[in-house]
Order: sequence, then structure tokens, then C-alpha cells
Amino acid sequence: MSREAAIYGKRRDMTVHGTEPFNAEPPRAALADRMLTPLEAFYCRNHGPVPAADAAAWRLTVDGLVARPSSWTLAGLRDRFAVHSETATLQCAGNRRAGLVEVRDIPGEAPWGPTATATARWTGVRLADVLDDAGADPAATDVAFLGTDVSEQATPPQEFGGSIPLRKARMPEVLLAWAMNGEPLAPVHGAPVRVVVPGYIGARSVKWVQRVTVADGPSENFFQASTYRLLPPDVDPATTGPGDGVPLGLVAVNSDFLAPDDGAEVPAGPTRVSGYAFAGGDRTVVRVDVSDDGGARWIQAELGEPASPWAWRHWSATVDVRPGAQEILARAWDSSAALQPADPASVWNPKGYVNNSWARLRLHGR
Amino acid sequence: MSREAAIYGKRRDMTVHGTEPFNAEPPRAALADRMLTPLEAFYCRNHGPVPAADAAAWRLTVDGLVARPSSWTLAGLRDRFAVHSETATLQCAGNRRAGLVEVRDIPGEAPWGPTATATARWTGVRLADVLDDAGADPAATDVAFLGTDVSEQATPPQEFGGSIPLRKARMPEVLLAWAMNGEPLAPVHGAPVRVVVPGYIGARSVKWVQRVTVADGPSENFFQASTYRLLPPDVDPATTGPGDGVPLGLVAVNSDFLAPDDGAEVPAGPTRVSGYAFAGGDRTVVRVDVSDDGGARWIQAELGEPASPWAWRHWSATVDVRPGAQEILARAWDSSAALQPADPASVWNPKGYVNNSWARLRLHGR
Repeated sequence: MSREAAIYGKRRDMTVHGTEPFNAEPPRAALADRMLTPLEAFYCRNHGPVPAADAAAWRLTVDGLVARPSSWTLAGLRDRFAVHSETATLQCAGNRRAGLVEVRDIPGEAPWGPTATATARWTGVRLADVLDDAGADPAATDVAFLGTDVSEQATPPQEFGGSIPLRKARMPEVLLAWAMNGEPLAPVHGAPVRVVVPGYIGARSVKWVQRVTVADGPSENFFQASTYRLLPPDVDPATTGPGDGVPLGLVAVNSDFLAPDDGAEVPAGPTRVSGYAFAGGDRTVVRVDVSDDGGARWIQAELGEPASPWAWRHWSATVDVRPGAQEILARAWDSSAALQPADPASVWNPKGYVNNSWARLRLHGR
Repeated sequence: MSREAAIYGKRRDMTVHGTEPFNAEPPRAALADRMLTPLEAFYCRNHGPVPAADAAAWRLTVDGLVARPSSWTLAGLRDRFAVHSETATLQCAGNRRAGLVEVRDIPGEAPWGPTATATARWTGVRLADVLDDAGADPAATDVAFLGTDVSEQATPPQEFGGSIPLRKARMPEVLLAWAMNGEPLAPVHGAPVRVVVPGYIGARSVKWVQRVTVADGPSENFFQASTYRLLPPDVDPATTGPGDGVPLGLVAVNSDFLAPDDGAEVPAGPTRVSGYAFAGGDRTVVRVDVSDDGGARWIQAELGEPASPWAWRHWSATVDVRPGAQEILARAWDSSAALQPADPASVWNPKGYVNNSWARLRLHGR
């Protein structure tokens, strides 16, 4: 086990993709059949060293296209605004990248499995209330966030940042959160305060937030303008610059298996398989299909109730496992009637983002 | 040409799927390369006879979970609320059904081609303003609309209706509209007043609206509870009832060709192909790929600027047409990084809704 996993309160059996910055995801079983993900199993995606958390010294600057620029302490936020909680799933844009790497190598990017996603109950104040208080210009288009974590992925090194449309920033589900599952935020998850943008890729839920800026365009931060962007397959990311490709934000419908484990040996016969499905933005998961015969026939999985419109749905189905090697398929539909694409090759892109192709679980019946 | 096409001000060359109710779509070329669709080329999807339009006699009832139930005349709406215009694409849930019928027959449903979609500039008042004025209960979940058109598809016959989430109903783009492209609404498009719900299937933009009801659940109208629902492939729609399948609302990313026509004979060599792409909800189209070699290689189409976040994007590309029969492919991506599914068989459903599989254009090079 990595020393860092212990330091950050994570399970001993996390798959650690990097120690500094610390990037890790849990085994599938750790996410199975539970709505809320405990701290020890919540994936970590960092872009620089974890900043020291000092709640007493923390300040949030609200500026840009606002009538009343302001600065808040944590106590000030708590005193001034109503406290709200929201259960929301976060999903890394690189979740399930391993399935794209199988199509074609993606050098320099961690081969995340299907567990760079997790769900927590977040508590804090509504960003909308803070923006209203500051008098955000309704003609502005975007709201940018800046963290205190410095990333050497940018040249020169830069604090991590990103932005979301003002329309989204004004929605009640977007929080400046200081608690996760009823506990103060852990240092590795953004203590003392982070942004939580339900339905958007995890990168927009900026941790260690120090600044909120209302603007008339997206953030020019490296992680908005130059990376976390979908590039066409034939482009070399080493040659791209700000504005190339298209920015990622909203999360497309996605799903994967959580049990049994991929490659598991199981007794032949009826076997329960289970997993998660998630759709971001204004969409929710409405159906999950499972096939044990390569997609000739699909049965509908039983869907769990989501804790909120912003949370994943767990699902399960009973499939017939035959002796020998076989592959089980799963695919989710969202409330726009969007279906996951079948083929990972069709969604392959040079940075390996948003693999939302059908989930495939290899089992060996004995 | 059908007598009805002339009566309703439509082109002589509309494909008429039915005369009573009147259902018709234009040839592809009529939609090509123009942001706004003229009245004569705007598709018609009706569920009953077109009601007589009498603007002077028209009344709108606003009721349900509201503090102040109200009734409005057209002049009253105009006087009381600010007038707004929005350019928005409407798309029938049955658009491109013909591609599903090629997979497996869909009895009793019109085989719509790719032109059951169109774009207009709509003018009216914001539904949000009317709901605010009535004091809509913020704890309500849905807003139902009822038209005056009576449909015999329901047993017993029923006025056409449907509902949308209250969250959407409060968005500024949702209108009670009396004008389309600067002209008073035509009778066949809902005169004197219709709902326009950008980003949702056309069926939710209820025409000839007479009632807006705030409620704590979706409408129980036949067209919300029993049809316009996605059923699993193995279900016989004749055996289903209210609540079966999942309701359609938000529009998934979709695209098709508008020129040349499907099956056209064209000179071999470089050939310009063009079309439309659209994504509903909070998504926009960010990329369109075109392939002239069956999908081995994709080029990116040139994208036109949309007139609004709620409007389609036209696109074009130059492909290499070889002598003989060949198929050109197109596929769109939306801002959630969702890609259209490749295979119409994967999205086939018993009522033939939401065929958003890759567009396929058959050309014959000579």
C-alpha cells in the first residue's frame, strides 16, 4: 500500500495512479450497493500537492462582474447564508480511460478504471446566494473558480481552476461545501471549502477554492482552456494550445459494473451482477440493459432509487454464466433517451476522456 | 399534392404522412443552409383536427398549485408581461423513424424521415413570468399544458396535453408564443397561442394551449402517461398502459443530411454534403464528424453558428464520391461529450421514437 493512501485516510487496496499529485481509485466492490461513498473509498484526482488546510485563515474572494466584490471567512459564509445539503455524484473526466487505452495507447495519462466516481452528501452554502449577495451581472456568461493547489502540469505552474456557465452557477444544487457525508472536508478533498458542481465533470468542482470570479467568457486557466478538452482522434495533444478541441463540462450518460470483479471466477449458473449508472446535467438515468450473450438479447436491470437527481443509480441483474470465459455487457439510457455508444473505438480521443461506451465485464464460469 | 398542404400553407412537395390529423414533412433541401424554417416548410405533427382559431375568444387558465389562479386573454398577456423572442428548434420524437423501420417494422406509426424538425423565431411571453404572477408553489414538481385539439388516439378521445418539470418551466426560454418568424401563429401551428419548450421533444410544445396547471407530478394526459414513452424492444405497445416505459422529454443529440438528397446521383469526385445537428436540454452541438469510407476515417464538418443555444447547427463537409453506390456517414457530439450511437438496431423501440443513430446518406457517383 502507498504511504499516501494511509496519510489521506484511504483504503489499503486503492489503485494508486500517482503519489504526488495523489491520484487513486478504490476496488469496484468498495462502491457496490451503497449510495454514499465513505471517505476511505472516495477516489482522489489531484493536479498538484495537497495544500495545507487552515480553516481560520481561509478567505474567499468574490470578484469580476459583480456590483459588490466581497471577501468571506468560513464563519462569515455560515452566518450570512442558509446552509444546504445535496447528495451528488462526482465523476472524473478520465473515469474508465482504461477501456480507451485497450483501443490505442494514451501516453502520459493514468489508466483509470471504472471507480473514478463516487457519491457524497455535501453541505455548505449555495453559490447562487453568494452571487446574488455580490450582485452578479446577469449579462455575464461564466463563473470561474480558482483553487490554492499549484499544478506543474501547466507551464509555468499554475493554480488549478475552471469555470461553469453562469446559468448553472445560479442553480440551487451548486454549493460551496465544507462538509462531506457529515464530516468536515478532508484535506485531500479540498478543505476547508470546495466547489461542488453536480452533473459536471469532477474537475469543475474546484477544491481548496480561494476565488470566485464572474466573467463574460470561460476561464483562461490551463485546466479549462488547454486541457479537459475533447480533441479529435488524429490530433497530437503535444501540439495543441488554448481553445483547441471542445471543453468538457456536462457528464454524458455512463455506467459500469461493480460486482463481481472484472476477470472473476464464479460458479456457472445464475449470477447477480451489479453496478452504477450516472448522467449529468439535467438528465437522469432511466434504464439499464444487461446482456449475457454479446448483445443479442438484453434484459432490464433492477434500478435503485437515487438519493437525489444528482446522484448515481445502482442497478443489478441476474445473468446466466456458462462454463469458461464470457463477457457480460451493460448499457444505460438517460432521460433524453440517449444510449451509451457501443464501441470504445468510436469515442477514443487523444487525452482519453469520457469513455462512456458500453460496460464490459469478463467472467470465468467454473 | 394534398389539398391539406395547400390549406395549411405548406409546400406542394411535402411528404404527407396523414391528412386528418395532418402530418407532413418537407423535402430535405427545404431545410438546408437556412437557420429559420419558413412556414411553408415547417413540419406538422398533429394528433387531431386543427381547432378553429379565434384570438378574441381565446382564454388561458392558470391553475393547480398556485396562490392566485388566473385567466388571461391574449391582450391581457401582452399588456401584463414583457414580450420576448427566442430562436428554437423543435424536433418530433418520431423524427428519423424511417431508419428504425428499416431495422424492424413499426406498425401504426408514420415512417417520418429526417425533416420532422425545424427552427423558428418564436415571440410571446415567458411562462416563468406567468407562473410567478400566479404564485406557483415552489414545492411543485411539474407544469402541465392542455390544448383544445381533441385526439382520437386516446380512448375515450382526449384533448392533447403533456407536462414538463417546473424547473424547466421557470427557465427564460420557455414561452407562451403567439408569433413564429414575425408572423402571427398559423392555425396549424397552434394559433392563437402555443407553448414553446426549447430543447424538449415537439410534443411538449403544446399547441392551441388553453390551460397551464402547476402540479406535484407529471400530467396524466394520454400523451404524457401512455404514449411518447420509450418502451423496451420486446414489449407490445398494444398491451401497455399509463406509466409503462419512460417518458420522453429532453432531446438527445441527433443529426442528419439535408443535401444532396438520399439516393441522389452525383458526379464522382469532391462533393459538398450538408445537414443539421441538434441537442436539447442544457446541451449544444460541439462537433460533427463525416466519413466517406464507412467510418474508417472521419473528417470534421464545418459548423455554422447557431442563432441561439436552442437552435440547430447546420454543418457541411466535402467528401470524395467514387463511381457507383456508396454511403456517407455523419455523427454529432454534444457538449456533454455524448456521441450519437452507431447502430439503429441498438436504439430500436416499439413505437419508433428518438432514432439518433448515425446519419447515413446513399449516393450514386457517376
